[in-house]
Amino acid sequence: MPRWEPDARQRLVRAALELFSEQTYDTTTVAQIADRAGLTRSTFFRYFPDKRDILTAGQETLARLFAEGIASAPAEATPLTAVAQALAKAAGVMTEFNREIGTRMQAVLASSAELRERDQLKHVGLAAVMADALVARGVARPVAALAGEMGLIAFRDAFAQWVNDDGAAPLAELLNGAMAKLRDARDQLG
Amino acid sequence: MPRWEPDARQRLVRAALELFSEQTYDTTTVAQIADRAGLTRSTFFRYFPDKRDILTAGQETLARLFAEGIASAPAEATPLTAVAQALAKAAGVMTEFNREIGTRMQAVLASSAELRERDQLKHVGLAAVMADALVARGVARPVAALAGEMGLIAFRDAFAQWVNDDGAAPLAELLNGAMAKLRDARDQLG
Repeated sequence: MPRWEPDARQRLVRAALELFSEQTYDTTTVAQIADRAGLTRSTFFRYFPDKRDILTAGQETLARLFAEGIASAPAEATPLTAVAQALAKAAGVMTEFNREIGTRMQAVLASSAELRERDQLKHVGLAAVMADALVARGVARPVAALAGEMGLIAFRDAFAQWVNDDGAAPLAELLNGAMAKLRDARDQLG
Repeated sequence: MPRWEPDARQRLVRAALELFSEQTYDTTTVAQIADRAGLTRSTFFRYFPDKRDILTAGQETLARLFAEGIASAPAEATPLTAVAQALAKAAGVMTEFNREIGTRMQAVLASSAELRERDQLKHVGLAAVMADALVARGVARPVAALAGEMGLIAFRDAFAQWVNDDGAAPLAELLNGAMAKLRDARDQLG
């Protein structure tokens, strides 16, 4: 039986991102990641199907929190209020580890067009999760699509601020600010 | 000197999409595409750097038309009015060939998750083109991002309707309808 490794998942993600930025994503192997994390290859594969999945680490958790946040919003909540609740739910579980990983991930993304494409697809997927959760509440598809897109733009803006600015406000507060900015933007569309 | 082949580009795109849906994208070779189109491999490479580029055929033209449509909108046009002008400009050059290709492309996309990803990236890229063109007009970035996204949702909705419904109205009219629907959606965001 494999023994339980405390924080193995976090150690693998941290080691992988270090290696990706030191020597590029393409040339980094699973064996190197496991080695840097002080773990074995087989431990790596207990947590991730593939090297590529490091880049979307946390996406499933985010998707689940977004969907739950929207589903649990009060019946009378408007689409954007439900989206704001989804963002608050996600912000509630973000730790210093997410912040550290966010910084490293930005460096890795800056180094590769292919990885930026994967990141854009993650964006599309998460916006779709919010849109689907809104449709399940009875919101019309085009309204849901727009609200989901606004939610994800707000999330990315606030997350980038949180990650890049040491003196930044708490993420929940930055998210409120980003959503307010998007509501203003909405009112200027004409 | 290679001789000029009338409609070579259209023939290559049509042949490629036929083959992709008959025998999948992965197993189709450039030689097969050229052969089906009655052309040579070297003619193929005069028009497309790679097989993959068949899937984004027309994207550069669309991007240029979107950018030009927004740049040439009257100074007093609101962001959404400028976007509507971009869509009208693109609609103005769409022919029966685009409609035929649209149908075939949908079948090909339905057959492959990887190709759907490429299509989503095309969506992201075209929305960004509109957003950038709006920013160049002095529109604030979040407003421009939202307007670009709305424009692309409207374009895709109207295009799908045009392609799938034999009795559909002209594309320009469908685009107006799709934009009107999105303005309504915008007003229901809460």
